[in-house]
Amino acid sequence: MTNTAALNALFGPQSIAVVGVSRDAVSVGSTIYANIIENGFKGSVFPVNPFIQEFHQKVCYPSVLAIPQTIDLAVVVVPASVVPSVLEEIGKKEIPLAIIISSGFSEIGAEGLNREIHIRTVAKKYKIALLGPNCLGVIHPHEKINASFARTQPIPGSIAFISQSGALGAALLDIITPKGIGLSHFISLGNKADINELNILEYLSSDQTTSVIGLYVEQLRDAKELIAVGKKMATNPNPKPIVILKGGRTKEGTEAVHSHTGSLAGIPEAYSALFDQACMMQAYSTQEFINTLVCFSQNPIPSGNSCAVLTNAGGPAILATDTLISSGVIVPSILGNHNPIDLLGDAQAKEYQEMLSKLESEESVHSILGIVTPQAVTKIADTANAFCIHKKTSKKPLAVSWMGDQIMKEGKEILDMGHIPVSKYPEQTAVMLSNLHKYASMRNQISKTQSEITPSSSLSSSPIDTMDPLSIVKSLGIPVPSYVCVKDIQSIP
Amino acid sequence: MTNTAALNALFGPQSIAVVGVSRDAVSVGSTIYANIIENGFKGSVFPVNPFIQEFHQKVCYPSVLAIPQTIDLAVVVVPASVVPSVLEEIGKKEIPLAIIISSGFSEIGAEGLNREIHIRTVAKKYKIALLGPNCLGVIHPHEKINASFARTQPIPGSIAFISQSGALGAALLDIITPKGIGLSHFISLGNKADINELNILEYLSSDQTTSVIGLYVEQLRDAKELIAVGKKMATNPNPKPIVILKGGRTKEGTEAVHSHTGSLAGIPEAYSALFDQACMMQAYSTQEFINTLVCFSQNPIPSGNSCAVLTNAGGPAILATDTLISSGVIVPSILGNHNPIDLLGDAQAKEYQEMLSKLESEESVHSILGIVTPQAVTKIADTANAFCIHKKTSKKPLAVSWMGDQIMKEGKEILDMGHIPVSKYPEQTAVMLSNLHKYASMRNQISKTQSEITPSSSLSSSPIDTMDPLSIVKSLGIPVPSYVCVKDIQSIP
Repeated sequence: MTNTAALNALFGPQSIAVVGVSRDAVSVGSTIYANIIENGFKGSVFPVNPFIQEFHQKVCYPSVLAIPQTIDLAVVVVPASVVPSVLEEIGKKEIPLAIIISSGFSEIGAEGLNREIHIRTVAKKYKIALLGPNCLGVIHPHEKINASFARTQPIPGSIAFISQSGALGAALLDIITPKGIGLSHFISLGNKADINELNILEYLSSDQTTSVIGLYVEQLRDAKELIAVGKKMATNPNPKPIVILKGGRTKEGTEAVHSHTGSLAGIPEAYSALFDQACMMQAYSTQEFINTLVCFSQNPIPSGNSCAVLTNAGGPAILATDTLISSGVIVPSILGNHNPIDLLGDAQAKEYQEMLSKLESEESVHSILGIVTPQAVTKIADTANAFCIHKKTSKKPLAVSWMGDQIMKEGKEILDMGHIPVSKYPEQTAVMLSNLHKYASMRNQISKTQSEITPSSSLSSSPIDTMDPLSIVKSLGIPVPSYVCVKDIQSIP
Repeated sequence: MTNTAALNALFGPQSIAVVGVSRDAVSVGSTIYANIIENGFKGSVFPVNPFIQEFHQKVCYPSVLAIPQTIDLAVVVVPASVVPSVLEEIGKKEIPLAIIISSGFSEIGAEGLNREIHIRTVAKKYKIALLGPNCLGVIHPHEKINASFARTQPIPGSIAFISQSGALGAALLDIITPKGIGLSHFISLGNKADINELNILEYLSSDQTTSVIGLYVEQLRDAKELIAVGKKMATNPNPKPIVILKGGRTKEGTEAVHSHTGSLAGIPEAYSALFDQACMMQAYSTQEFINTLVCFSQNPIPSGNSCAVLTNAGGPAILATDTLISSGVIVPSILGNHNPIDLLGDAQAKEYQEMLSKLESEESVHSILGIVTPQAVTKIADTANAFCIHKKTSKKPLAVSWMGDQIMKEGKEILDMGHIPVSKYPEQTAVMLSNLHKYASMRNQISKTQSEITPSSSLSSSPIDTMDPLSIVKSLGIPVPSYVCVKDIQSIP
């Protein structure tokens, strides 16, 4: 049902009606209205509630039909039972898009499902695109649009976040905003009665403000289209990595929300294979999801698979190395030295900065993982500043493990301000950097595969060579044992 | 070399000599001296440095030999090259234990290794037990003893922490102390020239202040003894779970510190099998390690394998369920309802508290995982208090996912004060609870195995039945395909 008008209304509405404001200032409807006004929306906003005449010193309209101008977007926050009739009015008013915040639809079982089918029918009749129901709304920080009831106002940035869970979105906002990390878009999908992640991804593929996309989904309906969209995003000259967190990877996890996504449910490996094919970076936990998004947003994509580990302590460096190696990243000797590069417990800021410079100009290093532990003589703030100075001119991915809490706090804030991705734990830092490396490699693989399987080799009309299928399978990134063609057992090399 | 006198001196010295104090107040020697004095050590402390006459208004002795009383423990903080001669004096003074803080030994390569062999020889000659070299020292918060240069003073608690990496220990102290989580003992092993983790574990097995032990190690020399000690600790009537974090699970991770631990290096699966046999709970990251220790210290061991998930949001509950299921925990229907139990977005503290009570009295529930997300109407502090009230009388393990940062802060502090293990992320909370369940199951398995393999069935002198080995293998917890004994192919059921 989504069309250009609807997507424009979703990403840049000029006029919004909030259907369901109330005298109660902490109600969801009133909160959304306040969020729109207080966050600086430049267009017109119209409160709607048939039982109120005035709202915030403005006329409150009994119905969208009574609003004396064209409306781009209706945000609907009325009881579920009233949504169909409100939607009829939205249709008559020819509003192209409705965000249905209200819950009480398919997420509550059979009765709700019927109601959801009903609103889809109404929406179809009037060609209204629907976001939701049962969602948190949308936020576009660059355009100062906040049509949501999120408690945190995100700052402008380059991460687009699309979530089927509003609560997960709210938590993410509360975690990244204090770090100074911003969003380009926040879109809560809810039950996906109409608009789904694929529509949003299509739109974002040409969005200039977005550099990386985070996607939390529970149900996935069209694997083929997902692969197509993912590949398209990855093979763009200016790729936007997609980081995906899948809820309901196990059968029980899926049943937990009464969702029935079909044959893939309960087969984690099937999802992994799917996301690999779609060149989407799968995160296996909320923490990995958030950290990886931040790491992508603050770093370039690495040009190779080697990482240098720079540390003032052996133990944490071993743990980081274990994780990097397990994730397929190479930790090679560098400059004839051991890697991890241990500056030892008395390392000062100057030594970190000098080694960072050396690693920056060393061709065999494609990313840098820094570790700082609170040793007796560590100058916390100075060392954090050394990383920030390096980051300003660096062209290689950098992430830091800043091991501690209270003592390390000041430095952590400096790193946040310097836009350096940071975790307390060496393994988490290793995971986020590994994900950058993995994405780079998946992307190379896809480009390579597309160029290798040319029509002349795979689709020629003459019979194909016996070994050809194996080479095609291999070029798709599927492991194939090494093989040769031999005439008899003696000629096996 | 460790004997009773040495272990007594390690865990409760009456008199300490600090060899290597200096006029520089921020030097490691002076920091250790200050840590001993300022943290309330009740015994006598003697500063030693031949170049200083007075230190902190006390006599500074030129050598331990000049101290006019018996000394239990010498803490040595002199340049590595001077350590052997200092050790000679310690031997002549008949001090049973020396903690060698100094670095510059086997961790720096061949030259250091020779020096380490040298000090072992001296120690052997005089029967001095050694902790270190290259370590951070020891802290016993209950006895107000801090013979370390850690920057954080831990509070008294029930977690014993033994670490081969001083830096990891320092980071752990800085992370748990602000949460109000305390330690019974903190022991930095360093290079383990003499005293190793097994000596410490033996001692802690009868320590009344310790309820759980955290062990970070890089090198493990005696797998058999490790298994024996682990099993002994687990089959105690009052078991003390051991949580182990192994640095250098991969070949590259091991090489990172020039350590050569032999055949196990680089085979993560071998370590996992070893720790399973030793009934030690393996953590796969620093974060999991710390969280699991905290979760054990604040909870009983669960009596079964079922977990109830209580939430105000679907998405995070699905993610927690996925993780629980993947870790082998059961998430069954409870009270005829779905589990996760979704109190929905408008859930208030009262509803959480009522459901917690119901789950407490429900026999099929063996642990509770709570999730709170920052929804529009969530009362953060009230909800945290509801968990604390429940915790006071609860007999079931409880851990909470408190999803957010800035908005959620107040509640997080309340949960910390209420001694409820908490993580921002649902998967992390699921992992720590799963580890409690896994430990309970490993422990049952070991008790069962020990009782099942009685001499009459496995060690009788008559020939054993063909199927017996399979049943023994099965009883050891190794998966065995289902089998029956048949006479011919037709009789296969």
